[in-house]
Amino acid sequence: MALKVYGIPMSTATASVLTCLGEKGVDYELVLVDLSKAEHKSPPYLSKNPFGKVPVLEDGPVTLFESRAIIGYVAHKYRGTGTDLFRHDNIEEAAMVGVWIEVESQHFSPLINAIIFEKFVAPLRGETTNQSIIDANIEKLGPVLDVYEARLSNTKYLACNSFTLADLNHLPYIYYLMKTPWGDLINSRPHVKAWWEDISARPAFVKVAQGLTLDT
Amino acid sequence: MALKVYGIPMSTATASVLTCLGEKGVDYELVLVDLSKAEHKSPPYLSKNPFGKVPVLEDGPVTLFESRAIIGYVAHKYRGTGTDLFRHDNIEEAAMVGVWIEVESQHFSPLINAIIFEKFVAPLRGETTNQSIIDANIEKLGPVLDVYEARLSNTKYLACNSFTLADLNHLPYIYYLMKTPWGDLINSRPHVKAWWEDISARPAFVKVAQGLTLDT
Repeated sequence: MALKVYGIPMSTATASVLTCLGEKGVDYELVLVDLSKAEHKSPPYLSKNPFGKVPVLEDGPVTLFESRAIIGYVAHKYRGTGTDLFRHDNIEEAAMVGVWIEVESQHFSPLINAIIFEKFVAPLRGETTNQSIIDANIEKLGPVLDVYEARLSNTKYLACNSFTLADLNHLPYIYYLMKTPWGDLINSRPHVKAWWEDISARPAFVKVAQGLTLDT
Repeated sequence: MALKVYGIPMSTATASVLTCLGEKGVDYELVLVDLSKAEHKSPPYLSKNPFGKVPVLEDGPVTLFESRAIIGYVAHKYRGTGTDLFRHDNIEEAAMVGVWIEVESQHFSPLINAIIFEKFVAPLRGETTNQSIIDANIEKLGPVLDVYEARLSNTKYLACNSFTLADLNHLPYIYYLMKTPWGDLINSRPHVKAWWEDISARPAFVKVAQGLTLDT
């Protein structure tokens, strides 16, 4: 039975999960959740994810939420197929995958999420973009990307010289950032720029990116 | 060679790492970082953690930062000793450990961190506590703990019926919350209260809690 992903293609968190499944070559069925009808706040959906967010993964009797948990589960369960996203067999590289997954989660994601929300999601909801929130988060994102620039001048990817989950988790977020007027945050840092051009050209993400249409 | 932890006992993130090492029965050396002298922003420390935060773990040639990454590394490396914090051998339970680690990271931690910062850290820095920030985060924390209450009425611990990393990561944060006037957030929810009383009595945490002195 194929895995079931409940989500929407334009959601960053859904897109990360679909990219991971693509990298592993795992078949899945995408079950669309109609956010406009608040389907994600309905009792059947809340029984899958009590926080009422997309995506959810169903794998037989296992129901998971939180995109990073889903991605971790997929990468572990299918460790033998597709891209080796955890570097399971190299304890030092695996340790660095863990570190840079957390850097994305704790340092990068809160800032980029606020920018994407204000720029693209607020207008969709009929709300006004709060430019001062964007400005404050852009200002904090620069120093974080300086750390990335230094890191990527030593290793080709964030955790090591191979593409891993730590890189994958950034893809949908930077994709939307590049649709804003602040793409220079990436382009002005040569190693970050080269890394972005490399990871965003991976076939699994190119396919998923077609659904990332929040800006249209 | 014993593991080296760079940190301070009163830090929540350091305390989580020390609790994990205690649960696994792994020896370590705690190297104190003098935050009052900005040692965590000095070049030697920044070479270990470019984000300039405690803790850092050194294990021979491996240097890690980000407490959740360190805890994950320790729980994987020492999977055969002490408490089975990941439920490695049960794929469904391991999946739920991953989910509830992310719930702590994404839903619980941002709220509780803001409360602890305003209540305890700001005064230490000679700043004034911003009560409106505390109030806003208390208001958001209630519905999150309602989800915990429902979960803990079905399983003894967050991920399953065994104590795991998902529970451990909450310990220092709730410990400080109980030192505020808002302990009723825990005590008014019977399953959350019973869970907190159970996990906070674990010997590994009781030892570490002696160092959690931000409030004194």
